Amino acid sequence: MSQQRTEIQTLGEFGLIDRLSRNFSLHQPTSVKGIGDDAAVIDIGAEYLVVSTDLLLEGIHFDLAFTPLHHLGHKSVSVNVSDIAAMNGKAEQVVVSIALSNRFSVEAVEALYDGIRAACEQYGVDLVGGDTSASHSGLLISVTVLGRVAKDKVAYRSGAKPNDIICVTGDLGASYIGLQVLEREKEVFMTNPEMQPSLEKYSYPVGRQLKPVARMDIVHELADMGIVPTAMIDVSDGLASDLFHIGKQSNVGARLFEDKIPIDQAVYETSALEFKIDPMTCALNGGEDYELLFTISPQDFEKIKNHPDIHMIGYVHDKPGEFVLVSKQGTVVPLQAQGWNHFRAQA
Amino acid sequence: MSQQRTEIQTLGEFGLIDRLSRNFSLHQPTSVKGIGDDAAVIDIGAEYLVVSTDLLLEGIHFDLAFTPLHHLGHKSVSVNVSDIAAMNGKAEQVVVSIALSNRFSVEAVEALYDGIRAACEQYGVDLVGGDTSASHSGLLISVTVLGRVAKDKVAYRSGAKPNDIICVTGDLGASYIGLQVLEREKEVFMTNPEMQPSLEKYSYPVGRQLKPVARMDIVHELADMGIVPTAMIDVSDGLASDLFHIGKQSNVGARLFEDKIPIDQAVYETSALEFKIDPMTCALNGGEDYELLFTISPQDFEKIKNHPDIHMIGYVHDKPGEFVLVSKQGTVVPLQAQGWNHFRAQA
Repeated sequence: MSQQRTEIQTLGEFGLIDRLSRNFSLHQPTSVKGIGDDAAVIDIGAEYLVVSTDLLLEGIHFDLAFTPLHHLGHKSVSVNVSDIAAMNGKAEQVVVSIALSNRFSVEAVEALYDGIRAACEQYGVDLVGGDTSASHSGLLISVTVLGRVAKDKVAYRSGAKPNDIICVTGDLGASYIGLQVLEREKEVFMTNPEMQPSLEKYSYPVGRQLKPVARMDIVHELADMGIVPTAMIDVSDGLASDLFHIGKQSNVGARLFEDKIPIDQAVYETSALEFKIDPMTCALNGGEDYELLFTISPQDFEKIKNHPDIHMIGYVHDKPGEFVLVSKQGTVVPLQAQGWNHFRAQA
Repeated sequence: MSQQRTEIQTLGEFGLIDRLSRNFSLHQPTSVKGIGDDAAVIDIGAEYLVVSTDLLLEGIHFDLAFTPLHHLGHKSVSVNVSDIAAMNGKAEQVVVSIALSNRFSVEAVEALYDGIRAACEQYGVDLVGGDTSASHSGLLISVTVLGRVAKDKVAYRSGAKPNDIICVTGDLGASYIGLQVLEREKEVFMTNPEMQPSLEKYSYPVGRQLKPVARMDIVHELADMGIVPTAMIDVSDGLASDLFHIGKQSNVGARLFEDKIPIDQAVYETSALEFKIDPMTCALNGGEDYELLFTISPQDFEKIKNHPDIHMIGYVHDKPGEFVLVSKQGTVVPLQAQGWNHFRAQA
């Protein structure tokens, strides 16, 4: 091993991936797209196979103090199916590996798998394999999902063009506020175990955090409307960070309008009044929304303009690296990406 | 969650998998074979896609005190490619996820990926994706491999028929002896750090443990000889345990001949003389050999009989559950499976 020692947190997750992947190239004629999108793309003849994988680790990605195992199982499948949706594909199979310490009983693992099964049924996906192992430190879940997409319908991050309309589904920031609520209640509970958490008021943001839903419905509706997004990604790191991925890979810039960014009213109030966090910061940088962020050709505007759950939040322009937000007051501010960095958080 | 608490080690890995998978069924028309073989099988039109996944955890599957990261990276790909070989398929793509604590430097991760790349080049496989995460406890590697096999060439565990010939490639037990050597040298080093380990004499078994090779060569040679195994599995848990998987799924029994079981001469001596372990026990129950164990129709005997690296070690019979070994002295003893049980080891 080399004498030099570079700490991983100096690179961050994306920097590490860039550094590790630069020595790899694709040789198989069936490998269409490797590292760098929501999913890898593999030619299987009539269609493309799309493949994505996600790791979920206890203490890094979830806290079992407030995460029911059933929800966790469901979420582990949803976040993977969301990656297939982001390619404009339909998920068909998952393989699920788990490692767990002997703190977990068979009944606990069954609760986890009940959630996995519920998600599989919800998305019409089959569990076809996996691996199980002991672990010295809690629970780990590794899911790989396989999906399919017609060759002329695949949506990469790299296809956005100047004047394309930027769209996002649902609303943003709720999952982050849900996490803040759960962490606050945990703290209260740790201080006074007789206090029972009252989460009813926060059921929407808490549900968004614990049991997000992959927007497969949108993939089907886009197909019904005859729209193929020019670029697409799911909002996992945060709207700003994920928009940067599209911009960087498409070699374009973007202009967003603050008054178009969808935020749930109750989430807005909880954020501003209880947590004193700017709701727009939650929407732009909160992450884990698992909504779809995509660009469409201006020609498709008429087809989509009346869709109740798709919001046109800005447009693409031809200045790479220039990502701005036009505030409600009309001032133009640069967008900042502050996506999750588990390595930095750990350091 | 239920009040009842069942410890995982009371079920073991296979029992846990049986219990978890019994509530899942296949619904997608493209899902041909789910849990229960070396790989899942998915219909992609002209061919089958075969998919397998393996977790490798520090402290459970590997000990970094004696495992170079380059070798570990190589092994993480090889053990997955071996599962594709066991389906009579050819691996084409892998996705590799890692989680690591901040004990690891970027240079250490690069050494791991150098090994992954070397294995990818050796097997002609593309790295097309993955995930990276921080970890609170050491290193974890999760690999999923995709391969292909012609629909009329796929080898399941379930196709063995009475009178089929049982074959195994290479030799057995070396990897287990290699692990014993490494653990002994580690103990010596812990007691006296000035002692440098002398592993030259043991380079064969140590190499088999640290850097196993998936037998893709055999898959190609079987194709060249015009042989499709009636059943196949790779020897990961141990010859006996893996033969039981074939027997159970094919609803047959097996008779092996001790004098036909291939063991490397030096490994035989190290096992018997240095470790006082019956070399046949290493061969039957050692595991991690990553050789191919398969059955062929008696009609294929002539095609295979002169192959220098394929050993005919017994035959299949029609009494399910009856697995015996005929000793060199002619006595008939029941085979015992003592494959790895990480859950039991941890308890």
